[in-house]
Amino acid sequence: MNTHIPESCGGLGLDTFDACLITEELAYGCTGVQTAIEANSLGQMPVIIGGNEQQQKKYLGRMTEEPLMCAYCVTEPGAGSDVASIKTRAERKGDEYIINGQKMWITNGGKANWYFLLARSNPDPKAPASKAFTGFIVEADSPGIQIGRKEINMGQRCSDTRGIVFEDVRIPKENVLIGEGAGFKIAMGAFDKTRPPVAAGAVGLAQRALDEATKYAMERKTFGKAIAEHQAVSFMLAEMALKVELSRLAYQRAAWEVDVGRRNTYYASIAKAYAGDTANQVAADAVQIFGGNGFNSEYPVEKLMRDAKIYQVSSQYH
Amino acid sequence: MNTHIPESCGGLGLDTFDACLITEELAYGCTGVQTAIEANSLGQMPVIIGGNEQQQKKYLGRMTEEPLMCAYCVTEPGAGSDVASIKTRAERKGDEYIINGQKMWITNGGKANWYFLLARSNPDPKAPASKAFTGFIVEADSPGIQIGRKEINMGQRCSDTRGIVFEDVRIPKENVLIGEGAGFKIAMGAFDKTRPPVAAGAVGLAQRALDEATKYAMERKTFGKAIAEHQAVSFMLAEMALKVELSRLAYQRAAWEVDVGRRNTYYASIAKAYAGDTANQVAADAVQIFGGNGFNSEYPVEKLMRDAKIYQVSSQYH
Amino acid sequence: MNTHIPESCGGLGLDTFDACLITEELAYGCTGVQTAIEANSLGQMPVIIGGNEQQQKKYLGRMTEEPLMCAYCVTEPGAGSDVASIKTRAERKGDEYIINGQKMWITNGGKANWYFLLARSNPDPKAPASKAFTGFIVEADSPGIQIGRKEINMGQRCSDTRGIVFEDVRIPKENVLIGEGAGFKIAMGAFDKTRPPVAAGAVGLAQRALDEATKYAMERKTFGKAIAEHQAVSFMLAEMALKVELSRLAYQRAAWEVDVGRRNTYYASIAKAYAGDTANQVAADAVQIFGGNGFNSEYPVEKLMRDAKIYQVSSQYH
Amino acid sequence: MNTHIPESCGGLGLDTFDACLITEELAYGCTGVQTAIEANSLGQMPVIIGGNEQQQKKYLGRMTEEPLMCAYCVTEPGAGSDVASIKTRAERKGDEYIINGQKMWITNGGKANWYFLLARSNPDPKAPASKAFTGFIVEADSPGIQIGRKEINMGQRCSDTRGIVFEDVRIPKENVLIGEGAGFKIAMGAFDKTRPPVAAGAVGLAQRALDEATKYAMERKTFGKAIAEHQAVSFMLAEMALKVELSRLAYQRAAWEVDVGRRNTYYASIAKAYAGDTANQVAADAVQIFGGNGFNSEYPVEKLMRDAKIYQVSSQYH
Repeated sequence: MNTHIPESCGGLGLDTFDACLITEELAYGCTGVQTAIEANSLGQMPVIIGGNEQQQKKYLGRMTEEPLMCAYCVTEPGAGSDVASIKTRAERKGDEYIINGQKMWITNGGKANWYFLLARSNPDPKAPASKAFTGFIVEADSPGIQIGRKEINMGQRCSDTRGIVFEDVRIPKENVLIGEGAGFKIAMGAFDKTRPPVAAGAVGLAQRALDEATKYAMERKTFGKAIAEHQAVSFMLAEMALKVELSRLAYQRAAWEVDVGRRNTYYASIAKAYAGDTANQVAADAVQIFGGNGFNSEYPVEKLMRDAKIYQVSSQYH
Repeated sequence: MNTHIPESCGGLGLDTFDACLITEELAYGCTGVQTAIEANSLGQMPVIIGGNEQQQKKYLGRMTEEPLMCAYCVTEPGAGSDVASIKTRAERKGDEYIINGQKMWITNGGKANWYFLLARSNPDPKAPASKAFTGFIVEADSPGIQIGRKEINMGQRCSDTRGIVFEDVRIPKENVLIGEGAGFKIAMGAFDKTRPPVAAGAVGLAQRALDEATKYAMERKTFGKAIAEHQAVSFMLAEMALKVELSRLAYQRAAWEVDVGRRNTYYASIAKAYAGDTANQVAADAVQIFGGNGFNSEYPVEKLMRDAKIYQVSSQYH
Repeated sequence: MNTHIPESCGGLGLDTFDACLITEELAYGCTGVQTAIEANSLGQMPVIIGGNEQQQKKYLGRMTEEPLMCAYCVTEPGAGSDVASIKTRAERKGDEYIINGQKMWITNGGKANWYFLLARSNPDPKAPASKAFTGFIVEADSPGIQIGRKEINMGQRCSDTRGIVFEDVRIPKENVLIGEGAGFKIAMGAFDKTRPPVAAGAVGLAQRALDEATKYAMERKTFGKAIAEHQAVSFMLAEMALKVELSRLAYQRAAWEVDVGRRNTYYASIAKAYAGDTANQVAADAVQIFGGNGFNSEYPVEKLMRDAKIYQVSSQYH
Repeated sequence: MNTHIPESCGGLGLDTFDACLITEELAYGCTGVQTAIEANSLGQMPVIIGGNEQQQKKYLGRMTEEPLMCAYCVTEPGAGSDVASIKTRAERKGDEYIINGQKMWITNGGKANWYFLLARSNPDPKAPASKAFTGFIVEADSPGIQIGRKEINMGQRCSDTRGIVFEDVRIPKENVLIGEGAGFKIAMGAFDKTRPPVAAGAVGLAQRALDEATKYAMERKTFGKAIAEHQAVSFMLAEMALKVELSRLAYQRAAWEVDVGRRNTYYASIAKAYAGDTANQVAADAVQIFGGNGFNSEYPVEKLMRDAKIYQVSSQYH
């Protein structure tokens, strides 16, 4: 947790490749827990990328001192992958900004100590996205923040996801990241470092599904032999293994690219898209191999199938 | 409900094609409810196929007089699609059979008034399946029947599925269907008439997913237009519609074959396999079209995706 | 051949369903031959739909008297599925139209006795497609027609496909179908009756691939048994059979719809799309089952794979 | 060419990773040419793995002095992936072995200067594969070798593939690799180093298909814009790019594993299976993007689709 916080702020300063390896292992256990932890990284990333020394010391340092959560507060009801259509407003008044708007699907929403918030600071609808938005650090206990009820989702149910309403929330100008208008670039830039771990999370889930299915297929017998000895099952397991390995190679490449200082959007998109598909296919195959038992919540795989879908639907965030 | 019970027993005497049309509509509403109702048909089918006049009057007639459930009691922990490996024993003692064994995944298990039960009556492990098993009608309140707890499944949660233990349960010989050794044929024969409705259930679910996704795609806007106007979505909807139509044609053909008196195993297998895949793919696509909302249980599609999987994993039963 | 020509013109007057059954059988033999024959139907269809008695007697009657070919002359180099962008011009001069333009991918192009030709008669680029185009019957020996060389294609090599250039070709006004501006509707209307046979052609090819693969899989032995006894192969064969049956149901439904007088565009599109995919997948699977032999032209399946692709790429025509 | 021949024999002594990079580029040009060149590597590999100094100097050295071909002579009519069922016999007579049998699908078969030959030296059908076979180097001009006619295949037509009959061919015992009974291990061991380049060849083909399709999609216009601007096409291109990149990562990993001295069978199998599927899917997609033009041999993609299939059907050899 918090592995990428710089050493100057009390963190480990590990790179994206390291984060991915840790994430895969956490996800092997439970992607709900992993997502909650990963959401911390996503919330912190804009501060790591765009925060000044003071902001970093204050908000990243705090995270290393006690077990706190933070959140990345960008998605809105009417704006999923279409970030440029965000409507939450930030108006400058003296030394403060006044925030009004509504965010949704905020992981760690009800547990966060502070938020990274993206809001529209230029009211002109023709202003380009690259200049219209500003990124803020917002203390969670600021007056005017109303936290919605915990969303009930198909999977990853231990992850705390909520809507948040901002009503005349006042943010001191010291909490602007970089400067007015720089928000879109910061918010998008965070993804370069967080997409590889999301892909790694999907791989952890897929590896777990593969391991559970393999174990079951070696033990379960039909027609006088272990089902793993039927080609229909063994070929399915081979295909699953192939997908897991390719997904792992993909996130490793994407992580390595950004770690050596290159733009990784191309590789990170491949990793996220393919690993998301893999997690879903491999989890569904695992349920298939478990047969009727796979549908039952006493066996481990139906949870994996429910958890996996988020890796396909959240094409941009997380 | 009970549409195929003969008119002589107070039923409607409708054929399989009719049953499929009704099933599709029920499934459009909720496949959990539909499965519970369908399980009645499956439980009754051996009696319709193999019951004598007295058995039919008594057990089918009862169903048309009050809202009762029955159940098809075949699957065992160690024998899913491999019916021939069933271990529940039936021993003849005078005018009775003594039943010992354990069944699982019994839909309506805790609600049934009576069961169709398949048990091994010939202890010789080399006896061919076509002679080793006997089919019984068992009153649910017979001493020695222990009903397990309701299983918690990924989907179709309103359907009551349980394990049932038979311990020295005594069945009068009048309740044997056809005769000793005829059970396997009766149990398998029931599928010819119940597989098409299972496929129809899958189609109902898929049609619902398609309709929900289409409606959402017409209303939801991104990048300035309804998402249905983005080819990535409209092509997906077209593909979903194609699968639903083909699945419907498939179950109609399978139903028609058996209604005109021909063996329909080939067409019924195609219908069940393809409609099951369709239900899963179309429900997953619907979640995809809903995006993050699709993962949330306030929207209708995550339930559809969870419900759908049973149509693929239960390759034989239902 | 010519099965749908009305009895009044010396034909059989069979309907679309009949045509499909015949087409499937022809395609089982060779889809190159079948496409050449089918192209006759496509060329005649506008005359059947929109021709007056005199036109029908003259041009359809001729076809039943001797073994002649005709052709459907619509596609252009810059206008595939985008029919509305057709550039071939028709200018009225007295009692004639003067045609200038270039057509391509014209099946039977070098063998046709006459063509159905679609040309733009309204030069205003803003004129709606439904009014801008006129359909003509053109004698193939008209001065000014230059027939290009036979195209060499991946498959269906016995089918004669060519480009045709029209340079100041004069057509008497008696050869206009219905009237000026009615061409687009006639040209599109022909598809309602020809799409089902195209799908039937794809099914014939797929059935052939399935039969060849099944036969080979029963004879060819590896690891001590016929490869059909390996699940990896038998499951593949089952999947192939499923696709063939569904494709057949789809074209039958589409043909039946149009035969009973209903608009069949929805069902015909499904049939054509799915049967085209089926032909390609099943032919590729057949090659796979043949292994190295499948790649060799001494065995029957590589031809099937090469022939099949046309059913996917020609989304509108044929 | 001949990049892996040791420096001691006049070669470059490059490793598998290097060979893969070169192979991908050759395959980008033409996989028929690449396969012919690759077949040289496959033929030499048993000599590199198992040849003594004298054998290497003589047979590998010769290859670096003039542009010669060699061939890997293992596959038989009745034994494709089932190597253990090979029937070609080798009988020891004094200082020679007498070879009788029939090989097929021998790439470079009619051009080779010498062959690596696998033959059964132990006539006992119960002898384990690991002891029953012996590997030989055979001069192509040995009396008794009859070379069959060039096979006509769906694709890779410039590659020379033939059947070869060995009738009382005499081989001096000096040409046995390692020793009697060591053949199976040598023949299989060659694959560890040649499977990654086969995968790299498939990647080269797929990259070419992607590049051709991208270029075409940027130039070709329908409905008023380049087809690349239609999501149905752009999403297809994205999916193609994803597959190419994953395939490349897969062969790089497999090559690297064997270069650092680890058994790479697992990774090489993944690379070969996935890259073969990728080549086929991406080439078929490219044809699809080209539409009707894709079916025509004046455009570059139909050749790619025909060439690609060999990467799926030859699951073991090459």
